[in-house]
Order: sequence, then structure tokens, then C-alpha cells
Amino acid sequence: MPNPPALPDHDWPRMDPGWVWLVGAGPGDPGLITLHGLNALAQADVVVHDALAAPALLGWARPGAMIEDFGKRGGRPSPTQPQISARLIALARSGARVLRLKGGDPFVFGRGAEEAQDLVRAGIPLRLVPGISAGIGGLAYAGIPLTHRDVNQAVTLVTGHDQTGQAPGAVAWEGLAQASPVIVAYMAVRTLDQIVPRLLAGGRDPADPVAIVEGASLPGMRVLETTLGTCLADLAASGLGAPAIVCFGRVVLLRQMLDWLGAIAGTPPRSLDPLG
Amino acid sequence: MPNPPALPDHDWPRMDPGWVWLVGAGPGDPGLITLHGLNALAQADVVVHDALAAPALLGWARPGAMIEDFGKRGGRPSPTQPQISARLIALARSGARVLRLKGGDPFVFGRGAEEAQDLVRAGIPLRLVPGISAGIGGLAYAGIPLTHRDVNQAVTLVTGHDQTGQAPGAVAWEGLAQASPVIVAYMAVRTLDQIVPRLLAGGRDPADPVAIVEGASLPGMRVLETTLGTCLADLAASGLGAPAIVCFGRVVLLRQMLDWLGAIAGTPPRSLDPLG
Repeated sequence: MPNPPALPDHDWPRMDPGWVWLVGAGPGDPGLITLHGLNALAQADVVVHDALAAPALLGWARPGAMIEDFGKRGGRPSPTQPQISARLIALARSGARVLRLKGGDPFVFGRGAEEAQDLVRAGIPLRLVPGISAGIGGLAYAGIPLTHRDVNQAVTLVTGHDQTGQAPGAVAWEGLAQASPVIVAYMAVRTLDQIVPRLLAGGRDPADPVAIVEGASLPGMRVLETTLGTCLADLAASGLGAPAIVCFGRVVLLRQMLDWLGAIAGTPPRSLDPLG
Repeated sequence: MPNPPALPDHDWPRMDPGWVWLVGAGPGDPGLITLHGLNALAQADVVVHDALAAPALLGWARPGAMIEDFGKRGGRPSPTQPQISARLIALARSGARVLRLKGGDPFVFGRGAEEAQDLVRAGIPLRLVPGISAGIGGLAYAGIPLTHRDVNQAVTLVTGHDQTGQAPGAVAWEGLAQASPVIVAYMAVRTLDQIVPRLLAGGRDPADPVAIVEGASLPGMRVLETTLGTCLADLAASGLGAPAIVCFGRVVLLRQMLDWLGAIAGTPPRSLDPLG
């Protein structure tokens, strides 16, 4: 394991004993953590991470730091949110410097706000370090910009499942189909069969482009380009699975031109006028 | 100026002559740039930045790197997008390693997708480095999470002005008022008087909480907590101005509990049950 890296000269915050820092790890590529995140890894006594935090990041923790895996991985029962919060509180009360490392951004889905509330209620001092949200940075790795002046001045981020594992009933899918030219759904492959009919019922064009990005920003990233009308069949045929981001809207077409990772690997742009 | 910092042991990409890397600087706090962004600063021959990129970041550029300011600042005429793209292309063709540093995330508003298209059309090789978008990371510094399970499973990011400086006519403000429980508007203080009536016309409750965050994540950050019905008068009385992020929705209430920067400065939480 490498030593903790040197950070540039700056007034970096010190992590004091008994504190919890809630840190976003970004979408997967470890190079997408922030300098504040690296500063946290260099100081923490304990790193409590979820399944989405990149393994390379854990290798950058301070030598001797304890690493605790609170991810939801196959086989083992998932820790509940109260169990995670209780563990963070107990560690802080024991005088540890605690880094809670969450995939993406702590405040975009993923229950970081609730964790922060639990800590405040317990009187635990807290710092928040944002991360690159998978729905933005992950799509960028697929060459898909969230916004383009000729397509959209608004984009909606939505979670594809609620605590029951179903597509959230409280989401106004039909209304968003009309009001939001681009919709980015997190954790949505398992509920796509519930989401797509509601977007169509809301009047969304079946020809509307859709991209499904599995393992966004990771070396094994896979991207399916499809349409609203055909995405369920194409998804089933593709074998793609979670974790994945689904993007609905014409910005998906820009991948034909802006797939910069493909270009680095030698694939020329498929179109120089993808919006037509 | 400090020397370029050491990055942790990793297979960091090399910036080759003639390439342009389009890099997100984050919302303002220089510690919110990513490690990939720092890796770009350590290698670039030229850094072409906009007005929103933090000055501290420029101090972390490779010693001897040229710094070019393409920001839109008072007095001087703003460079046009074609001028900026032409400059990036000319620098790359001259064999320079070019870092194009943009505030926030390059692919969330701010015309990064168009810049990338100009580069691809010119045959310039390109890498994309996402950044923390101000609407997410900036609000987090104000203690406002974009999502909370008891408030919203969807959030819409929208730009507050189009190329004419008006609130974008193509945005379905009335539809979003109904369909999106939380709306985050970028660059919206100057057009707030156009946006608020349309949200009210769409049926949004005048009592809906609103926060206006000026200089998000910077040391002089100022936050106005108000409501949809009173925000125009409160904004005028506050003296707040651009650059600012406006957040519409009940997640704003969580600042009463999650204002972690305020807590660090000694202000206890105003409520331990802000959602009631």
C-alpha cells in the first residue's frame, strides 16, 4: 500500500478524535474522489464504507486504519440504517476519527442526510465532503452530458427504487415525462419495467433515446444505447445489471460524438452531428 | 507557489502534447477538485479557466504553466464560445498540453458539451474530468441535502437563464412545480422574478421553503432562508447576488439541523426535527 499522499500546500482541515466525516467517494473511478476526501483518508482511524466505494480508495487510507465494510453484498444480510448510524456513533464516542465513505455523493439518494441527522441527534461533530454523483460523473464517462443547450435546460435526477425495492410510487413519472426533457434514474434497472410504462403513459415518445450505463466510470463499464420503446427488451437481451444509471433523453445521442473513452481506445466518433 | 503535489500510487493518465482535458473545478472550495483534476494541473502547459474556477487551484498548476483567464468579469467584453473553442484548438495544435478548467461540472450547464463537440470536430484528442456540481456540493455546504427519503425521490436541476439572460422559456416551470418536489436553479438570482410567478402559477405552495446560496462553498458564503411567496422581497432586502444557487423545496428545512459549517463555527442546531 502506498503511503498517504502529500496534498498541495493549503489550510487542510484536521480530523479530530470523536468526529465523523461523511465523504462522497464518487461513482467508481478512484481518481474522482476530491482532495478533501483524500485528506480524510489520510487521517481517519476507521473507514466505514459501503459497497459502492472503490477498493483502490481503501488502499489510500492511512496505514493502520481500520476498514469496516458496511456494504450490501451477496449472501450476507444487509446492515440496516440504524445499525450503520449506531456503529458510527459508537466509534466516534470511543474517540476514533471516523470516515464514513459513501459511493457517489452523500446527499444525493443513498440516505446520507438521514445518517447526518442521526449523528447530530447524538451530538457527534460532523463534516460533510461532497462527491461526484454517479448520475453526472458516471454518465460523463459514457460520453453523455447531462445538459446541452440544444436539448435541455433542465434535468431530473430520480431514484429507481424505494425502500420496498419498487419504483417509488411518490414520483410523478407521468409529469416528469412532460416537464423534464432529460431524466436520470439511479438504481433503476430492476424497476425499469415499472418506470417505462409510466413515462410512456405520460406522453414520452417511444423513440426517445435511452442509455443504460452499468459500472459507470469503472474499467468494465458497459453502455447500452436504446430507446424508450425498446429498452426493456434490449436490457433483457444485453445481460446488463446493477449497479446502473439509466438516462432518458436526447443528450444520449451525443455519445455518438463525445465517447471520449472510446476515442482514447481508438474508436472514431460515429457522428459529427448527432443531434441532427 | 507550492510544487505540484504527489498523488497516491496509481496508474494516473498522462497528459500528452496536443490534448485538451476538460476539467470540472467544483463549486469554489479548491479542496473539492478531484484527484484527476489535480493530476491535470500537475501536467498542463496552459490552463484556460473561467470566472468560476477558484484562484487557489491556479496556484497548484505546474510551475511555469501559462494561465489564461477566459472568465466573464466586469468591464471587459466576455469571450464568446467560438472564441474560447478556437483558442483551445489553436493551443492544442501548437502542441501544448491544455487544461480547460470550468467551475462546477463541465457537463452540467456551462456549455462544456458544446466545447467538447468543437474539439472533436477539429480532431483534437480529449479527456473529460467531472467536477462537483455547484447545485449539489454547494448546497451541501449550506447544510441542504438534495434528497431526503421523507421529502423527495426526485430533484430537478435547471438553469435560471438562457443565452438572452432571461429565464429559459423552454423550461416547463409550471409542470416542474407539480412534478418535482425539489428544484435547484443555477444562476437564477437575476431571473428569480420571472421564475417564482411561474412556479406559483403551476400550483406550488407559497409557503414552500426556498434557500438562496451566494458564493456556495467559499469562505464568504451567504445563505438566505425564505419561502416561495416571500423570496423576491427577501432577496431584494438581503443584498445577495450572483453567483448563487436557488433551492426550492422542503429539503431546505434540513439546514436547521444539518448546517455543519455553522456547527463548526459554534452555532448549535436550531431544530432536531426540522421536517416536523
